[in-house]
Amino acid sequence: MKNNINTKPMPGFMELLPNEQLVFNKMLKTIRETYELFGFRPIETPLIERAEVLLTKGSGETDKQIYRFKKGDKDLALRFDLTIPLARYVAEYQNDLVFPFKVCNIGKGFRGEKPQLGRFREFYQCDIDVIGIDTLDLSFDAELVKIIETLFKKLSLDNFKIRMNNRKVLNGFFESLNIKKPKDILRSIDKLDKFGEEAVAKELLEQDLDQKTVTKIFEFMNISENIIANLKNLNIQNETFKTGVEELEYVQNQINMLGVDENIWEIDLTIARGLDYYTGIVYETMLLDYPEFGSVCSGGRYDDLATYYTKTKLPGVGCSIGLTRLFDCLLKNDLLDISTATPTQVLVVGMEGYESNAIALTNELREQDVNTETKYGIKGSFKYADKLGIPYVVVIGEEEAKTGKYTMKDMKTGEQEQVKLEKIIEKF
Amino acid sequence: MKNNINTKPMPGFMELLPNEQLVFNKMLKTIRETYELFGFRPIETPLIERAEVLLTKGSGETDKQIYRFKKGDKDLALRFDLTIPLARYVAEYQNDLVFPFKVCNIGKGFRGEKPQLGRFREFYQCDIDVIGIDTLDLSFDAELVKIIETLFKKLSLDNFKIRMNNRKVLNGFFESLNIKKPKDILRSIDKLDKFGEEAVAKELLEQDLDQKTVTKIFEFMNISENIIANLKNLNIQNETFKTGVEELEYVQNQINMLGVDENIWEIDLTIARGLDYYTGIVYETMLLDYPEFGSVCSGGRYDDLATYYTKTKLPGVGCSIGLTRLFDCLLKNDLLDISTATPTQVLVVGMEGYESNAIALTNELREQDVNTETKYGIKGSFKYADKLGIPYVVVIGEEEAKTGKYTMKDMKTGEQEQVKLEKIIEKF
Repeated sequence: MKNNINTKPMPGFMELLPNEQLVFNKMLKTIRETYELFGFRPIETPLIERAEVLLTKGSGETDKQIYRFKKGDKDLALRFDLTIPLARYVAEYQNDLVFPFKVCNIGKGFRGEKPQLGRFREFYQCDIDVIGIDTLDLSFDAELVKIIETLFKKLSLDNFKIRMNNRKVLNGFFESLNIKKPKDILRSIDKLDKFGEEAVAKELLEQDLDQKTVTKIFEFMNISENIIANLKNLNIQNETFKTGVEELEYVQNQINMLGVDENIWEIDLTIARGLDYYTGIVYETMLLDYPEFGSVCSGGRYDDLATYYTKTKLPGVGCSIGLTRLFDCLLKNDLLDISTATPTQVLVVGMEGYESNAIALTNELREQDVNTETKYGIKGSFKYADKLGIPYVVVIGEEEAKTGKYTMKDMKTGEQEQVKLEKIIEKF
Repeated sequence: MKNNINTKPMPGFMELLPNEQLVFNKMLKTIRETYELFGFRPIETPLIERAEVLLTKGSGETDKQIYRFKKGDKDLALRFDLTIPLARYVAEYQNDLVFPFKVCNIGKGFRGEKPQLGRFREFYQCDIDVIGIDTLDLSFDAELVKIIETLFKKLSLDNFKIRMNNRKVLNGFFESLNIKKPKDILRSIDKLDKFGEEAVAKELLEQDLDQKTVTKIFEFMNISENIIANLKNLNIQNETFKTGVEELEYVQNQINMLGVDENIWEIDLTIARGLDYYTGIVYETMLLDYPEFGSVCSGGRYDDLATYYTKTKLPGVGCSIGLTRLFDCLLKNDLLDISTATPTQVLVVGMEGYESNAIALTNELREQDVNTETKYGIKGSFKYADKLGIPYVVVIGEEEAKTGKYTMKDMKTGEQEQVKLEKIIEKF
């Protein structure tokens, strides 16, 4: 009774085969466990919110992309990020939470944007934030770099670079040049990596800057060694700038004290992170072999998380991994070990009449936390194991039941051996 | 700038504090790992589907409850269960999957129903299914009982009972009584537990059954010992009935062979599971100390998973846990160990001047996978650990740096001792 219903997932929605999904889940688990290794506490907020909660900022772009709908007389919407629900959450439960609140927030967001390569309409975000009341120590800005280092090494994405800057340094610098709209400039500068100096210079000149100022901007952006010292040598008399440099220096020292590998991070004065709400340290993380992925883990410091929901001032620092996009990039570049992904470590095959022996072995293995499947009858067993990437097949028949030695086949090498139960259990 | 936005989660949406969320996540992890222990492979389908995919069955109740909306010219909806997306998934990828397909499908569903106690509009389902092509061995129906047993023991919900029946036994029995609409009868019988024999008898009499038939029905339903033998003794000449009894007997034998504890399951002829698509074995699982929770894990055998999406016949058997509801029941009955839930096992406190020692210890502990937080300065440290349920605090100051012995406080007992690094690591 098939009636031509389209069974494909819709464009912009990721759907994986089981072995791909296993690898995805493993990454998700590594992320969660690494966040918890640093003491971050999980929260999970609903995917549906009152539309008024999500649309306080009233950005035109968001309004267009948001999935919004009525149910009865309720005006509802799917969240498009995890930051706004976090703000609502912290505002609501501020009396029940312990500050500094180290929070890990992993879940899906939704944006009905035009599907394009690497852009998803339904996507996982993996966020961590540290939120203080009134103030928050800068050491947390440093700890985030340590966390990203630990995480990317655990994810076996070893060749990465965290680039850090401070918005105060940028803002102060622009103030000192009498630039009134630093946001527009920052937006242009964010494109440096993508479009190069010439294109950005052209854009800056169009923004009413004179050539001399643009030259100064590029001189500043090109500082790439002894950055703190060189920034100080600029001798810029601007309080925001000075504070920014001090913060950068402090965070740099803290990062070094944390024992972060000096090759995996750097200060990069061109990093701005377009989002309005960052006010201090900002980060991005590049996979050096795959610059085309863009930043795979970004974040920064903000002055006040929940302006729209509470009078309490909640400064914080956080970072976020767009896991759906990252996974998609890794998958399409063949960087994941998909073919060997299987939950099952052993397939136990019971020949006719020896089913209960197979079950006994299966039960034993599962009690030792060895993921095991049972099959009755040898027919199709090796094919099943082979197709699913199950690494070992153990067969039990008359001979095996008599001797207590099982025939175990290593599906990778094709080797077979006769082994005792204890040796099978030992193996895993 | 608070503008009176309501920051509470909406009625029918669960939102937990971090320590509660930790316990929830732990349950979710136990469920996933137990499913994988039995070789079930994970999939995850989008939360948003084309409305036409979800509404093929056209049940009035579902139409009312579904969250449905337009985006551009697309008619979309949030899934209200995980079975329909699974059907679409298996239909779409049938050539890439290996059958029998043992699949684990954990995620959220949405129903805009009236919020009431224990009913959620956004809820986690934890489903497993085994799906065959054309046929599927009955041993999988038995394995599900073993899985539920293993899982509930791992969840420390020890006092439970799995009740099993076979729809064929029921249908055949009703056929033998010349009852034309067994579905209506089954729906009434499903209420036996809740409303008792008298109310159900009344309902049955209203459905055009004579008293003699109703008496026969209750005699049948009251068979509670040696059920297989007693069913055979009824000597009912109906093929469906006979097949049903044979299946029950086979599955019973399989369950025994799997070594399932005989106290945790039983055949119960009153179990029908209202859903239309079950065609064979059906289960439910009761927590015996909390019958008011209803069935916390239910499922059964169906003839064809994906009638609406493919011509391939896909018989299967599965079961599902409504985790949001179960967790809510456990939480409200104080059955969860919430107060001690913390990701952080140790808080390392560095006194002034000994921050780098604290970091060195922290790094060491984290390398051994001990979840650790660092704090600079002793002020507020013990209060912080106490509030968050962090079990151990280690302090490093002058004395500790000199002797290499750290002061470790057990926050539960209040005891302090001087210990070497190796002993701290050993402890975890």
